[in-house]
Amino acid sequence: MTRILVLHGPNLNLTGLREPETYGTTTLEEIDQSLQKLGRERGVEVRSVQSNHEGALIDTLHEARGNTDGAIFNPGALAHYSYALRDAVSAVDFPVIEVHMSLTVAREPFRHTSVIAPACKAQIGGFGALGYQLALDGLLRLLRGDK
Amino acid sequence: MTRILVLHGPNLNLTGLREPETYGTTTLEEIDQSLQKLGRERGVEVRSVQSNHEGALIDTLHEARGNTDGAIFNPGALAHYSYALRDAVSAVDFPVIEVHMSLTVAREPFRHTSVIAPACKAQIGGFGALGYQLALDGLLRLLRGDK
Amino acid sequence: MTRILVLHGPNLNLTGLREPETYGTTTLEEIDQSLQKLGRERGVEVRSVQSNHEGALIDTLHEARGNTDGAIFNPGALAHYSYALRDAVSAVDFPVIEVHMSLTVAREPFRHTSVIAPACKAQIGGFGALGYQLALDGLLRLLRGDK
Amino acid sequence: MTRILVLHGPNLNLTGLREPETYGTTTLEEIDQSLQKLGRERGVEVRSVQSNHEGALIDTLHEARGNTDGAIFNPGALAHYSYALRDAVSAVDFPVIEVHMSLTVAREPFRHTSVIAPACKAQIGGFGALGYQLALDGLLRLLRGDK
Amino acid sequence: MTRILVLHGPNLNLTGLREPETYGTTTLEEIDQSLQKLGRERGVEVRSVQSNHEGALIDTLHEARGNTDGAIFNPGALAHYSYALRDAVSAVDFPVIEVHMSLTVAREPFRHTSVIAPACKAQIGGFGALGYQLALDGLLRLLRGDK
Amino acid sequence: MTRILVLHGPNLNLTGLREPETYGTTTLEEIDQSLQKLGRERGVEVRSVQSNHEGALIDTLHEARGNTDGAIFNPGALAHYSYALRDAVSAVDFPVIEVHMSLTVAREPFRHTSVIAPACKAQIGGFGALGYQLALDGLLRLLRGDK
Amino acid sequence: MTRILVLHGPNLNLTGLREPETYGTTTLEEIDQSLQKLGRERGVEVRSVQSNHEGALIDTLHEARGNTDGAIFNPGALAHYSYALRDAVSAVDFPVIEVHMSLTVAREPFRHTSVIAPACKAQIGGFGALGYQLALDGLLRLLRGDK
Amino acid sequence: MTRILVLHGPNLNLTGLREPETYGTTTLEEIDQSLQKLGRERGVEVRSVQSNHEGALIDTLHEARGNTDGAIFNPGALAHYSYALRDAVSAVDFPVIEVHMSLTVAREPFRHTSVIAPACKAQIGGFGALGYQLALDGLLRLLRGDK
Amino acid sequence: MTRILVLHGPNLNLTGLREPETYGTTTLEEIDQSLQKLGRERGVEVRSVQSNHEGALIDTLHEARGNTDGAIFNPGALAHYSYALRDAVSAVDFPVIEVHMSLTVAREPFRHTSVIAPACKAQIGGFGALGYQLALDGLLRLLRGDK
Amino acid sequence: MTRILVLHGPNLNLTGLREPETYGTTTLEEIDQSLQKLGRERGVEVRSVQSNHEGALIDTLHEARGNTDGAIFNPGALAHYSYALRDAVSAVDFPVIEVHMSLTVAREPFRHTSVIAPACKAQIGGFGALGYQLALDGLLRLLRGDK
Amino acid sequence: MTRILVLHGPNLNLTGLREPETYGTTTLEEIDQSLQKLGRERGVEVRSVQSNHEGALIDTLHEARGNTDGAIFNPGALAHYSYALRDAVSAVDFPVIEVHMSLTVAREPFRHTSVIAPACKAQIGGFGALGYQLALDGLLRLLRGDK
Amino acid sequence: MTRILVLHGPNLNLTGLREPETYGTTTLEEIDQSLQKLGRERGVEVRSVQSNHEGALIDTLHEARGNTDGAIFNPGALAHYSYALRDAVSAVDFPVIEVHMSLTVAREPFRHTSVIAPACKAQIGGFGALGYQLALDGLLRLLRGDK
Repeated sequence: MTRILVLHGPNLNLTGLREPETYGTTTLEEIDQSLQKLGRERGVEVRSVQSNHEGALIDTLHEARGNTDGAIFNPGALAHYSYALRDAVSAVDFPVIEVHMSLTVAREPFRHTSVIAPACKAQIGGFGALGYQLALDGLLRLLRGDK
Repeated sequence: MTRILVLHGPNLNLTGLREPETYGTTTLEEIDQSLQKLGRERGVEVRSVQSNHEGALIDTLHEARGNTDGAIFNPGALAHYSYALRDAVSAVDFPVIEVHMSLTVAREPFRHTSVIAPACKAQIGGFGALGYQLALDGLLRLLRGDK
Repeated sequence: MTRILVLHGPNLNLTGLREPETYGTTTLEEIDQSLQKLGRERGVEVRSVQSNHEGALIDTLHEARGNTDGAIFNPGALAHYSYALRDAVSAVDFPVIEVHMSLTVAREPFRHTSVIAPACKAQIGGFGALGYQLALDGLLRLLRGDK
Repeated sequence: MTRILVLHGPNLNLTGLREPETYGTTTLEEIDQSLQKLGRERGVEVRSVQSNHEGALIDTLHEARGNTDGAIFNPGALAHYSYALRDAVSAVDFPVIEVHMSLTVAREPFRHTSVIAPACKAQIGGFGALGYQLALDGLLRLLRGDK
Repeated sequence: MTRILVLHGPNLNLTGLREPETYGTTTLEEIDQSLQKLGRERGVEVRSVQSNHEGALIDTLHEARGNTDGAIFNPGALAHYSYALRDAVSAVDFPVIEVHMSLTVAREPFRHTSVIAPACKAQIGGFGALGYQLALDGLLRLLRGDK
Repeated sequence: MTRILVLHGPNLNLTGLREPETYGTTTLEEIDQSLQKLGRERGVEVRSVQSNHEGALIDTLHEARGNTDGAIFNPGALAHYSYALRDAVSAVDFPVIEVHMSLTVAREPFRHTSVIAPACKAQIGGFGALGYQLALDGLLRLLRGDK
Repeated sequence: MTRILVLHGPNLNLTGLREPETYGTTTLEEIDQSLQKLGRERGVEVRSVQSNHEGALIDTLHEARGNTDGAIFNPGALAHYSYALRDAVSAVDFPVIEVHMSLTVAREPFRHTSVIAPACKAQIGGFGALGYQLALDGLLRLLRGDK
Repeated sequence: MTRILVLHGPNLNLTGLREPETYGTTTLEEIDQSLQKLGRERGVEVRSVQSNHEGALIDTLHEARGNTDGAIFNPGALAHYSYALRDAVSAVDFPVIEVHMSLTVAREPFRHTSVIAPACKAQIGGFGALGYQLALDGLLRLLRGDK
Repeated sequence: MTRILVLHGPNLNLTGLREPETYGTTTLEEIDQSLQKLGRERGVEVRSVQSNHEGALIDTLHEARGNTDGAIFNPGALAHYSYALRDAVSAVDFPVIEVHMSLTVAREPFRHTSVIAPACKAQIGGFGALGYQLALDGLLRLLRGDK
Repeated sequence: MTRILVLHGPNLNLTGLREPETYGTTTLEEIDQSLQKLGRERGVEVRSVQSNHEGALIDTLHEARGNTDGAIFNPGALAHYSYALRDAVSAVDFPVIEVHMSLTVAREPFRHTSVIAPACKAQIGGFGALGYQLALDGLLRLLRGDK
Repeated sequence: MTRILVLHGPNLNLTGLREPETYGTTTLEEIDQSLQKLGRERGVEVRSVQSNHEGALIDTLHEARGNTDGAIFNPGALAHYSYALRDAVSAVDFPVIEVHMSLTVAREPFRHTSVIAPACKAQIGGFGALGYQLALDGLLRLLRGDK
Repeated sequence: MTRILVLHGPNLNLTGLREPETYGTTTLEEIDQSLQKLGRERGVEVRSVQSNHEGALIDTLHEARGNTDGAIFNPGALAHYSYALRDAVSAVDFPVIEVHMSLTVAREPFRHTSVIAPACKAQIGGFGALGYQLALDGLLRLLRGDK
């Protein structure tokens, strides 16, 4: 059975609670549940992890080596400076899709660059909470070899 | 009936024919046909336009004002300098999703920045030809008010 | 009879229709009519051209060589990158006044620089639609040798 | 009666006397007289101040609060670094038009940026001494609500 | 029979007519004729295209795929920003030689960089109209496998 | 009762022990005790947390939501790169005062910029250990609505 | 008796009158009176000077040599370019505290850097008019040798 | 007895398992064992710590104060942004040698700068796993006072 | 009789009194007296002016037009930003020698550039108070036509 | 008789021996012989000099003054920093053509700029060893006055 | 027998004689003797060359082709600009270890970058004269295939 | 007897022969003779060396250690990149005065920075050949302890 890791970085535990004009009102729990539901429909296993600790995110990626087929990763603001996370993404043996809920290139200049993206397979941004579902759909189709 | 414009910029007419290691082997005609098919399944009208002329792309966006509900736009390399296209995207009254087949931030530095993106609603990159289908799916869900 | 060319670049056909808080509600047709009227009052011939195509704007400038005494040029967003238009302005044998309706230096950073301006005779910005009339007045006085 | 302040920054007292190939041969006195004359024709009060002192220019702007309807300001080379003058322009309750006699963007790089401009209403450059008259005309029309 | 495309970008139609101190007095027609003549002497077919439209230049390169053995390309000022043309050069299946009549690195800073050059095979600049003939000679020898 | 969080970032546990010429000889425990004392005098609750872990600092800020009226935050060197902490400060519902003991703008260039500061309410630097007391005093007065 | 100089730079005479959303509604006179009052309570002499003239601010600092124990200095926008004031601060024999009412690092980029700060003892920003009182309190405690 | 700390940063736990063309096939366990062995031969105590958590690396350095004579530190990708680790290295009372297995200056630009290095005593890079042994040898000789 | 103006900018009135390790212990009065003495020996008139006001320095240069044969100018820190002074130097009809007592290029980065220097005839720096005498000697020899 | 100097800079003695994928397999001796042969055919004298010493290259250019009609110069990597060679090229009284065998603008960023080129007459790059022959041909035609 | 070249760049002949606080008091002769001694112990041939001439260093590297198994190279300040030396290192057929006695990244900014390093195999810095011995030890172990 | 070294860098042997509008018509021999003459008048020994070789200039400075009391150095264009010469100047035990005949800061941007200057005692530029005499005079007075 295809196994998908959904990884959420710092401050995403407050999704739906902070700055709703930027991040919407859907909570992280609701996002994770919708992904579980979509996974069940597609017959794949989806598990979600959130942490505010860069090191814990790296540990989670490392532990996923060998038991995961693909990952969806919203690194939050770590996207803009965590070269350690970039190296962790490069070190895993499965494709990683970077997701951001807001359209980061239309916000403050420091959000325009993701240092993690070059190690990823693909990127989605600006769709709000929907972006996770598009990412899961896209990842499963890439794993199936769709074109 | 929801009306979607798919707009392809310069050199995309050669998709599938040029640099297949970067852009894959699916042709633009096949991409457009798959979007038409998806549109028919979803009950929406999808029409595609390709041009190597910046001016023609602007004209097409202008003409879509008032008769279009959303657009999917792959501006090709014009993404990196055409502020005129950015203004055209800002001038239309429907959401535009920017799509790139390759993961541009993992390629040459000049491809890391899209000057058009800040005027768009969302972005998808790195999924190859699949990215267009994800974009159409996402755009329709945004238009429906999904979260 | 003094012959004046008024040249409008990309997206200016939507003047009065798009982003009225930035560009006002006067339409391009109204602007051109007011310039025709002013021309008739001053006894000069005024003709206007608008295009969204950089190449067409260059062609128009070239064709004006030998039959034009001065030009008023709003290059729109091409101002920020079209070195080809700058060379076209350098290649004509009459003075060109660059006009922008908004005060571009007070907007996004990419609008702070006009690569075309150094080839022009003078610049006016921030007066809205009025700027064209000031430009025409100024151009005619420069051609008359006023100080 | 509409009251207009014309403010000239450092070195402009030498206009017509220094570097005539750049600044022409019309003296500042002649410029001010022509503006007085134009003011009388239009039924507005025009008064002119010149100073080589940044502080005196700020004092003059402050003192004009409450008794002035608009200003024409040539800050000279202070345009390129005087953030204090920019704040003074932001602090007044009337529109300010920045004027330069030469086309500054076509000269040395340090002259390409005016740090004062973003606090102004509009800009005119490159028309020589004529630029002041265009600015006065434009300012009066803006105050009248012309479009 | 070897088939060579000579492609001239914006403003080159005015060669010999504009700024003769920079571009000389030989007209584009004379340049093209001299290349035709040289082609006939060498037994190769030479055809020339000029356009002020970026899109038309891209179209011409695309149409040359499959019926052309090499190209000589003077992109004019598009050299400095047209990443779309760079991609078009990368997309063709024949070598392209970039030619500039003036020595661009000795002129204004914006002319020091050609964004198209990295997709070309070789570069020649500063020889005036002669540069085209050197380019044709060099291109033919490269195609012959000379060293 | 007003509740104040005092948050100390990495290496501040060594305050008074490391580089005394820069950071003085007062220990963190002494700083916290002086703040407790000042809090008792003012009738407010002051609690202090120190961590060398970015993630733990974020967790602490999150947990303070809903039970804290204001915070004093010395992010240590995380000030210069932790956009995740900046987002955490933006996500809380109480004002945060950034404090540095040294005058960071007078030290190495990397210390001149705090990426966290724009999300804070105010800043104090260069007063040594006294800075915390000034910050507490200022924060309490801001909460009281003093001017 | 301890003698404190309070020095206000350009445009601060309009405090409370200009841009109240940024600078509040307390006037400079009220700020100076509150500092006088605080000075009387603490048994120190406080005198205030405001000028829009960089030169006058330098003169005032020079004249304070030998008769002043410390200064509080809000240089206004001169903070961002007046290296002459920086040298004046370096030349005096008493500590200077830089105060800004707004949080300058959260405003336009040009306000992020104070060229005067490296010559000061400490900095306070973002507390509005209260910042002056905190600065006076902090300065007096530094002079007393508090830690 | 001389006590040496060997500290490994994020992703180094995967040494020998990830990207062998860059980092070789020797595992971290093998590296640590070879250092233990070399330590025993030289009569010094060597202990190794690895963590993917910046905070844990800082804690480890702090705890080593007073019980360690020198350290060998491979900060992994934290080298490129962790100013907090730099401050931790500055805060310890023993020399620290920075080691990288690859030659970082020959890789991606972001790897060319170590913000930690200026606080270290010396640097070694490009020797693969051997670099640790050279560092241990060099550190012991520095501690002995060799020249 | 040859007439020489010696002009000293901000903070130079404190020469000999401030930062003696940088500027020496000779006072400005002593410097001016030594120049008077040298002038008398050479049969030229030397007069000195010092001001902390940029505007007063500009006024002094303007007033020297027509009655001065050359000037020695130490603009102090205004050298690094006063484009208005640069324009004043360009506007006078006599050669100006820029003098700095310290070797500015060996100090803080902001002191490495003089924006006034390009309008001067020559520069001397690093000789301390002696530099003025060398400048006077050199200026007189230039005026005499020595080589 | 026309006299041509061919000058080769550092490392070019290894042409054909080092990095053949970049520089080809033709040796410098073969290149020089082919140029001699071409010179004999055209009735001109060609002499070649190679040195790894910047100073020797300058000496050679100086000695060529008065006895040389033109030069072909491949400065090797000195192209990227030797302003002394640029000045030497400016100091000679004959035209110099810069040649590079590889297309330097398509290689590492440091190779994109030649500081010597602005002092040259023309440039050729990317043709491999053939580039020297094209340069000789072009130089002779320039000397003959061809267009 | 393994043959090692030790190459010292400009000013290194004064090692031990100049700036001892930076470079120590061991002379270059002593360094070379210690390397000879170490070479004899290891059964390898070590020869040392020092030159202040970039060209002579290039010549020495070229002459070492074919008769050398590895090199230790301290390029001195040429490290920061000599692209010609970088190309020479790329052109040799043996590994080169770059050594600096001081920790260059902790000194002036211009010393932070070595343009030669990317062509080397490994780097050592900050160990003083000991660095050469570590480099020789490391180079011999690399040549032996140690890990 | 005081011994002065005069050192001239690349291309200065052509002084008086090349670009007379920049460097004048006085030859280097004449300059050296005038310095000899001035030396004899002052009772000091002056010897001059010119070389186009960076290495020879370094050798000359090294050899002057111990037998020279001061030097006048015109490094020519090496001023802009030769960090090796800078280190050589730092390594000598006598003061060095940098001289340029032209005012380098008023010429091309690359000439605005001297990387050698920070290691010198003082600088003179823009006086033409006279600058050497001023430098010799100033150097002798510095050596005498004049103020």
